[in-house]
Amino acid sequence: MTGYKDLDRTNAFAKLRAMPRPSIAELLGPERVPGCDLPMGGGLTYNWAASPVDGALLARLGELAAEQGLVEKYRLLAEGAVMNSGEKRLVLHHLARGQLGAPVLHGGRNLREFYEGERLKAARFAESVRSGSLAGSTGKRFATAVQIGIGGSDLGPRALYLALERWARAAGRQRLEARFISNVDPDDANAVLARLDLASSLFILVSKSGTTQETLANEVLVRRRLEAAGLDPARHMVAVTSETSPLAGNPGYLESFYIDDFIGGRYSSSSAVGGVVLSLAFGPETFAELLAGAHEADRLALEPDISRNAAMLDAMIGLYERNVLGMGSTAILPYAEALSRFPAHLQQLDMESNGKRVDRDGSPLSYQTGPLVFGEPGTNGQHSFYQLLHQGTDLVPLQFIGFLEGQTAEDVEVEGSTSRRKLNANLAAQIVAFALGKADANPNKDFPGGRPSTLIRGRRLDPPALGALLAHYENKVMFQGFAWNLNSFDQEGVQLGKVLAKKVLSGAAGDPLLQAYASMLGAGKA
Amino acid sequence: MTGYKDLDRTNAFAKLRAMPRPSIAELLGPERVPGCDLPMGGGLTYNWAASPVDGALLARLGELAAEQGLVEKYRLLAEGAVMNSGEKRLVLHHLARGQLGAPVLHGGRNLREFYEGERLKAARFAESVRSGSLAGSTGKRFATAVQIGIGGSDLGPRALYLALERWARAAGRQRLEARFISNVDPDDANAVLARLDLASSLFILVSKSGTTQETLANEVLVRRRLEAAGLDPARHMVAVTSETSPLAGNPGYLESFYIDDFIGGRYSSSSAVGGVVLSLAFGPETFAELLAGAHEADRLALEPDISRNAAMLDAMIGLYERNVLGMGSTAILPYAEALSRFPAHLQQLDMESNGKRVDRDGSPLSYQTGPLVFGEPGTNGQHSFYQLLHQGTDLVPLQFIGFLEGQTAEDVEVEGSTSRRKLNANLAAQIVAFALGKADANPNKDFPGGRPSTLIRGRRLDPPALGALLAHYENKVMFQGFAWNLNSFDQEGVQLGKVLAKKVLSGAAGDPLLQAYASMLGAGKA
Repeated sequence: MTGYKDLDRTNAFAKLRAMPRPSIAELLGPERVPGCDLPMGGGLTYNWAASPVDGALLARLGELAAEQGLVEKYRLLAEGAVMNSGEKRLVLHHLARGQLGAPVLHGGRNLREFYEGERLKAARFAESVRSGSLAGSTGKRFATAVQIGIGGSDLGPRALYLALERWARAAGRQRLEARFISNVDPDDANAVLARLDLASSLFILVSKSGTTQETLANEVLVRRRLEAAGLDPARHMVAVTSETSPLAGNPGYLESFYIDDFIGGRYSSSSAVGGVVLSLAFGPETFAELLAGAHEADRLALEPDISRNAAMLDAMIGLYERNVLGMGSTAILPYAEALSRFPAHLQQLDMESNGKRVDRDGSPLSYQTGPLVFGEPGTNGQHSFYQLLHQGTDLVPLQFIGFLEGQTAEDVEVEGSTSRRKLNANLAAQIVAFALGKADANPNKDFPGGRPSTLIRGRRLDPPALGALLAHYENKVMFQGFAWNLNSFDQEGVQLGKVLAKKVLSGAAGDPLLQAYASMLGAGKA
Repeated sequence: MTGYKDLDRTNAFAKLRAMPRPSIAELLGPERVPGCDLPMGGGLTYNWAASPVDGALLARLGELAAEQGLVEKYRLLAEGAVMNSGEKRLVLHHLARGQLGAPVLHGGRNLREFYEGERLKAARFAESVRSGSLAGSTGKRFATAVQIGIGGSDLGPRALYLALERWARAAGRQRLEARFISNVDPDDANAVLARLDLASSLFILVSKSGTTQETLANEVLVRRRLEAAGLDPARHMVAVTSETSPLAGNPGYLESFYIDDFIGGRYSSSSAVGGVVLSLAFGPETFAELLAGAHEADRLALEPDISRNAAMLDAMIGLYERNVLGMGSTAILPYAEALSRFPAHLQQLDMESNGKRVDRDGSPLSYQTGPLVFGEPGTNGQHSFYQLLHQGTDLVPLQFIGFLEGQTAEDVEVEGSTSRRKLNANLAAQIVAFALGKADANPNKDFPGGRPSTLIRGRRLDPPALGALLAHYENKVMFQGFAWNLNSFDQEGVQLGKVLAKKVLSGAAGDPLLQAYASMLGAGKA
């Protein structure tokens, strides 16, 4: 089998670095565009025509993918191999969407059956709430689901909820609205609660460990508010947690839904962490369709030929831009307002997975790993940070996302075009503007071009498309982690802050620097 | 007077580059912290203790600021000098907050009086709406103000509205809620409109030129919806525009409020662009207090001594990190949920102003200019992208923002501390964790430290504090633009995309590449 080695110890990377670096302006013409389409699942297509990669580079990237055993490692992961050298955990978010290979048995249990069982439990629960047969403690029908969680228990589910809210409303599938409380700043929970009818609100407490400081504090805040309103908190709250957490099987919740240690927070939208809130809001069939789209993308990512594997190609183009061309960031630019928080989810997914400076063996790396990821919807971004993208001193690779149709029906025609056509005309225009630029005698109006991009497109942002989009990025990040030889599935970098925060809260004794900052901020021990 | 020259032609920059580069871990101790406080206005304090700057570097940064004439240029700007070499416009957003020097007369008019006059007009209008004396076309009191605008007409006002909403509610000042429609994607407007009671909604159309494609399309969409609901659009809509725009003095609006070409979009929150919606929602006195805080910050930024000028020092530390230490981005990390969209505003402010690759004379620069700016509120970010910030391969300078008190009263004590104390304990802990790191025998748990940060703090996020925060960043970006010798107040980089989008909409004849992308996206001519 393929071993683990650092990127700069592969033959393929050395060859890749020695290759000529074609300019996008020379590569990109109308004839190139249709030939660069790849299926992604969920009806989506990945197009890499405006990337700085020609046929020869594509072959080198494929060699690198093969030498680093990307598909082989993915298969191992999907079948339950221990992937991180540190934490020794399995990595099974794919299994929450479907079986990709041999069954994964652990502790005498088939884990696909476990995940599917929890999904079905959530589906039944959601149906009882949506039908009104299960109601709040005053008998009032539930109208709002409020997720209490942070990080992966917040960003992914929130992004997916916002992405499908308009679609579900138009499709007649939305029964509950969802709200999210994440920050330990009480101004967050207070503002959400101020707008809620508590008697018709169902809270979903999400913490895998059952010990997340922010989430537990917000739970107490919510329970007090429910009690003050004369409601029974145990009839307004469910838990999503692991079977070994202090929250498991607690009679303080209407129901508990289980996840396990093998689905990391930022990968947990496919589990009950995303499933409960999405099933409540949009119906279990919506969540099942999302998982089916993700599973289709997962299967496509098993393809060993890079020219037919969108997630792998996206990963390797990103690596080429990062490690050969020296670009330090990536912008996610969805031309769909519904994806307004999707870049924030990808920011976590990517930066938390591959923002690492040592390899699987703990040796410091001599090459750059995960890029900085950011983004906002277009056309909004065009009127904001695109200036720097077009004419700044750093080159930022761009990932555009667009859809032929919108999620809502109403539109207007102004100056001969609908708003939807304007939206996508701007998207098409930006790809070309970034790639080719435009010479101008006035240097202020001169566009150098050479800004690489790729385009993900689909007919409509519906549950299968969204699932495929989610899985595409998860698989891209996974492949990059394999190629960089990282522990992509831990996040040790979040620990030190937690330890020091506890120290501050207990008085910061013996640490005068911590004390200095704590007292400035009123956070010293009272 | 000081001339204009590129950064790499200054003596001070050469000296700066030759200086020893102290490590943060060596610099930062408890005794350093209190001595690094600087007043920012609005009750805010800037602390640079965790930055990589010692006394010797501070002196060099001050020399550079003097050699590039930062304060002198700021004075000229504030008194109405033409700043951009390209567009030949005055730059007068400071004047919308107060008079900093000699009166600015233009076209026979005192522009301070003009701006102040428009502010007072907005104040009177807001009072008539807030009191109910001016109502909708069915006689129903206005309850919601909906801003229709994009870029600077959206991001700044939206960030400020969200920043003060909880505060205004607690202070009993909120009368109207605000909503925002920005994207040309009709899914944006449709989703906002679906939740509105149109009869009690007042729309604020914001476009300086009166020709912004997205905004005009959304106006038509809104007018149709008002008409379909049997309402008179002319009694539900006001305009914020320039006196020369097609929208000016149009009877299709209840009222028109004027701005001029001398306040750029991303700097326009202090003008009627921000003033109308904020005055409607929170009252004219709230907006006036915000402007007073901004004006106080503007006055402090006139201080020539860098060790007493927070905006200048922040600018020069950022330049040192960018051009000497080679860091390509900056994270804005407010520990305040109310500032959730403030980083998106700063992203526009900074990247659109200083994302430039030629100097004022049009010569390509050989040094890096504006960094990539991004951010999310803490503690949320701790559970997301902080992993990369702590242990990634790139160093990202951090700007923390925190407040002693929250905007809402309710809080809970869990495990011996309130949520607010937890919030600020985390903030204090992160500063120290990033700066000092922590050695660990397990390389996965090893934190290298050396991650620079600065801290902005205040008692509470109220209107003067928010105004000072807004002005601080505007002045920081202005000073950096002076130091880099840029045209910070134009945005030519947004033009090419607009031109090509129009070409697509008119059929893209003769441009087969544009056509290829347009037809993929259904944006070709029907």
